Amino acid sequence: MTAYDKLEALFTRLIRLDQALGFLSWDTAAMMPPGGAASRAEQTATLKALHHQLLTAPEVGAWLDEAAGLTLDAWQAANLREMRRDWLHASAVPGDLVEALSRACSASERVWRSARQAADFKAVAPFFAEVLRLTREIAAIKGQALGVCPYDALLDQYEPDARSAEIDAVFDDLAAFLPGFIEQALARRPSPPKTPAGPFPVDRQKALGLEMMRVLGFDFDHGRLDVSHHPFCGGTPDDVRITTRYDESDFMRSLMGVLHETGHALYERGLPQAWRHQPVGRARGMSLHESQSLLIEMQACRSPEFLSFAAPAMARAFGAEGQPGWDAETLYAANVRVAPGFIRVDADEVTYPAHVILRYRLEKALLAGDLAVDGLPSAWNRGMRELLGLTPPDDRLGCLQDIHWYDGAIGYFPTYTLGAMTAAQLFAAARAAVPGLMTAIAAGDFRPLLSWLGERVHGRGSLLSTGQLLTEASGRSLDAGLFKTHLSQRYLS
Amino acid sequence: MTAYDKLEALFTRLIRLDQALGFLSWDTAAMMPPGGAASRAEQTATLKALHHQLLTAPEVGAWLDEAAGLTLDAWQAANLREMRRDWLHASAVPGDLVEALSRACSASERVWRSARQAADFKAVAPFFAEVLRLTREIAAIKGQALGVCPYDALLDQYEPDARSAEIDAVFDDLAAFLPGFIEQALARRPSPPKTPAGPFPVDRQKALGLEMMRVLGFDFDHGRLDVSHHPFCGGTPDDVRITTRYDESDFMRSLMGVLHETGHALYERGLPQAWRHQPVGRARGMSLHESQSLLIEMQACRSPEFLSFAAPAMARAFGAEGQPGWDAETLYAANVRVAPGFIRVDADEVTYPAHVILRYRLEKALLAGDLAVDGLPSAWNRGMRELLGLTPPDDRLGCLQDIHWYDGAIGYFPTYTLGAMTAAQLFAAARAAVPGLMTAIAAGDFRPLLSWLGERVHGRGSLLSTGQLLTEASGRSLDAGLFKTHLSQRYLS
Repeated sequence: MTAYDKLEALFTRLIRLDQALGFLSWDTAAMMPPGGAASRAEQTATLKALHHQLLTAPEVGAWLDEAAGLTLDAWQAANLREMRRDWLHASAVPGDLVEALSRACSASERVWRSARQAADFKAVAPFFAEVLRLTREIAAIKGQALGVCPYDALLDQYEPDARSAEIDAVFDDLAAFLPGFIEQALARRPSPPKTPAGPFPVDRQKALGLEMMRVLGFDFDHGRLDVSHHPFCGGTPDDVRITTRYDESDFMRSLMGVLHETGHALYERGLPQAWRHQPVGRARGMSLHESQSLLIEMQACRSPEFLSFAAPAMARAFGAEGQPGWDAETLYAANVRVAPGFIRVDADEVTYPAHVILRYRLEKALLAGDLAVDGLPSAWNRGMRELLGLTPPDDRLGCLQDIHWYDGAIGYFPTYTLGAMTAAQLFAAARAAVPGLMTAIAAGDFRPLLSWLGERVHGRGSLLSTGQLLTEASGRSLDAGLFKTHLSQRYLS
Repeated sequence: MTAYDKLEALFTRLIRLDQALGFLSWDTAAMMPPGGAASRAEQTATLKALHHQLLTAPEVGAWLDEAAGLTLDAWQAANLREMRRDWLHASAVPGDLVEALSRACSASERVWRSARQAADFKAVAPFFAEVLRLTREIAAIKGQALGVCPYDALLDQYEPDARSAEIDAVFDDLAAFLPGFIEQALARRPSPPKTPAGPFPVDRQKALGLEMMRVLGFDFDHGRLDVSHHPFCGGTPDDVRITTRYDESDFMRSLMGVLHETGHALYERGLPQAWRHQPVGRARGMSLHESQSLLIEMQACRSPEFLSFAAPAMARAFGAEGQPGWDAETLYAANVRVAPGFIRVDADEVTYPAHVILRYRLEKALLAGDLAVDGLPSAWNRGMRELLGLTPPDDRLGCLQDIHWYDGAIGYFPTYTLGAMTAAQLFAAARAAVPGLMTAIAAGDFRPLLSWLGERVHGRGSLLSTGQLLTEASGRSLDAGLFKTHLSQRYLS
């Protein structure tokens, strides 16, 4: 058994442990009664501790060094690179520091829940300050181990090999572009179209969601749709669990959420079969994952072509055939209306990046020590004015709205907008490469699109870096211009 | 840290791992799409291997020996006794033998599914023979480690400290009693009463089940009701998951199943809070667990008193108030009709023990080598004639009906009937000890019963042996006479 073989055996165990953790996490969000939370936290902590213990066992570092001298094929070499990344992240930081952060996050997240309700930033500030203090310590250590700056070390956990210097350039450009563009888009469609009024019964919304998942090729032999407060895609490539939530006054919200999560699910389902239990077989990173959900939701399913296919099915689902407002044109007009608001998760495609850029800039400043925790609310509101021309009336609609920071997820936000740009670029490449792609989508046939994505994105797992994958699939590195072109075509024409 | 403290820390981890495995197993039965099975099997195998690895680490045996010399209170001493039992079962058998059995069971269980469909015992016989061969080897090794005969070593996995010599005496007595009793019961109620005809819609059956669970005190903040092919009670004491299945032509079957599983759930919920993550905090064994489900279902909920309370709720659930057949007398008469049949899981309270005694005798003979696998079908049919006067027309309705043996569960069957006898004995003790118990049940008030059970059974965890617990709770050791008295009162009066 070579050192590489030993590593493969170890990582098979680790990934099965990860998968078990994934199901527990799905269960927590979708099934668990509230009284199960405390004991669930203990089960999860035990599995995570075992994972950490196995990954950081003394012999693993030596195996990694030894395997680096072996002759490996491209997939094995990429696998070894991802193993080393996992190992560096896990072994760089002393166990008691990881535990301290985990405890600080639990406390901060708990206080955040009531602080958000009460719009009381001061209540959570000391808890968040502790999370930030420990995160900075960890970021510094990991940065040293990975040879990058502290922020990039955090980023690397979610988006391997991403660098904030590159993101800065792209985001600065987009931040300069957005305010003027938003103004133009608002002028283009000043008032919302008259869309169908509800109520839209939950069981019919669910039936419609399931129907559209089938249209997209979701395999119910290998997955489920359930309900959770925050929609997500969980489970494993062989058993993908997506969730949604229902609002009886607005069926489009749940439906588009279902299509979004289906995009994530199709990525997971398409990961390379032969590498299911190795790091190289995992999805490439959060940007690419988000690009797959946004490609399906924003690029494909909010298109006039898809809506021309789906509008009759929507009307049928609610027994409203032939009634006004159910035509594809009205539904499309409603989908492409820009409306700046305070809340990120409610934002449209155009204003969403502004929310993300704000968070990215602030979390970098917090991590660098350029922004103190106490100064966060006013810095937030200043940023909102600059980017969206809005001043939140309180911190509930401002810097308390998202769970991420209070739960220790710093370095995650940029992946949303990197994903949106990647989606636009990949979809443009697919349209150019596949004749009749939009005609097929207008007929409810996603096979041409999924075949292209399967070959260029899904089936490659983590073989390439995100940048390499994008360049091979689309012929160029990340280009914000394609995202701007997409926005212009959809929102100004 | 004393050796005992080290053991407590280890077993906390082990029990959290057990709980994670419990949720995966619930998910497999209640939620998982079929395509997830293969990767679920791998997740489960990984967690089980880690469990085994932790429990059989070289230092554990020394800790157990060292802790035996320490001064411990009664709970700690009982905890140490249960730790040693777990350790003996895990460490006695070489790992490759455990793995070989696990593989043999998977193969045999898979073949059994189609063999049962085709009523083709010969197809599964060689696979079952391999399961039996490995089980005999393991039973011999464990018997040596535990100082008991091989069959009792298997029994000990499900019913700690039980001995087949004692079961033989009780079952022989019952086997002599049953044929005559069944004849008398059939003569007492020769034809079934005219009960309400369906269909009974699934959503209304579910609502009725949930309503009755609430009446029994099931806490939905700490549990759920779902659907699975084989009803069971899973999850953890803090998050108990029970399942049922629905037959639109027979609501009583699902409802009684729900009440049965609720009995299991109430036991789990009532386990001692302070010992949730230690072996002594677990349920005592399968007999006592089954006694709690049968006490709730058979003793309490199939009583005329409970049916007088529940009959109006049942009629209401199906919009059948005032219609014929929905009165408590008719429903009770339907519940106490004896009908010998081929299938154990369809059997009534009176004929059920005959099915169990048959299996117990046969599995003992198989393990001892007194019965060859090839001889099983004819031995089965001979036993059915002797105990129930019936000859199965084929092995599907005979020795292929249950999954247990083909999946390696040998030594489990007797716990069903030990549980039925224990239920009768505990319920008689509760009635004698709690004035107004049946009046309360007739009013849908289970608090007096649950308070007695909580103190005498649920809250004791594994502090006492099953025999000690029963003696302290009921004033005597297991007495089949109380079960016979119960049957006489219900089926002959």
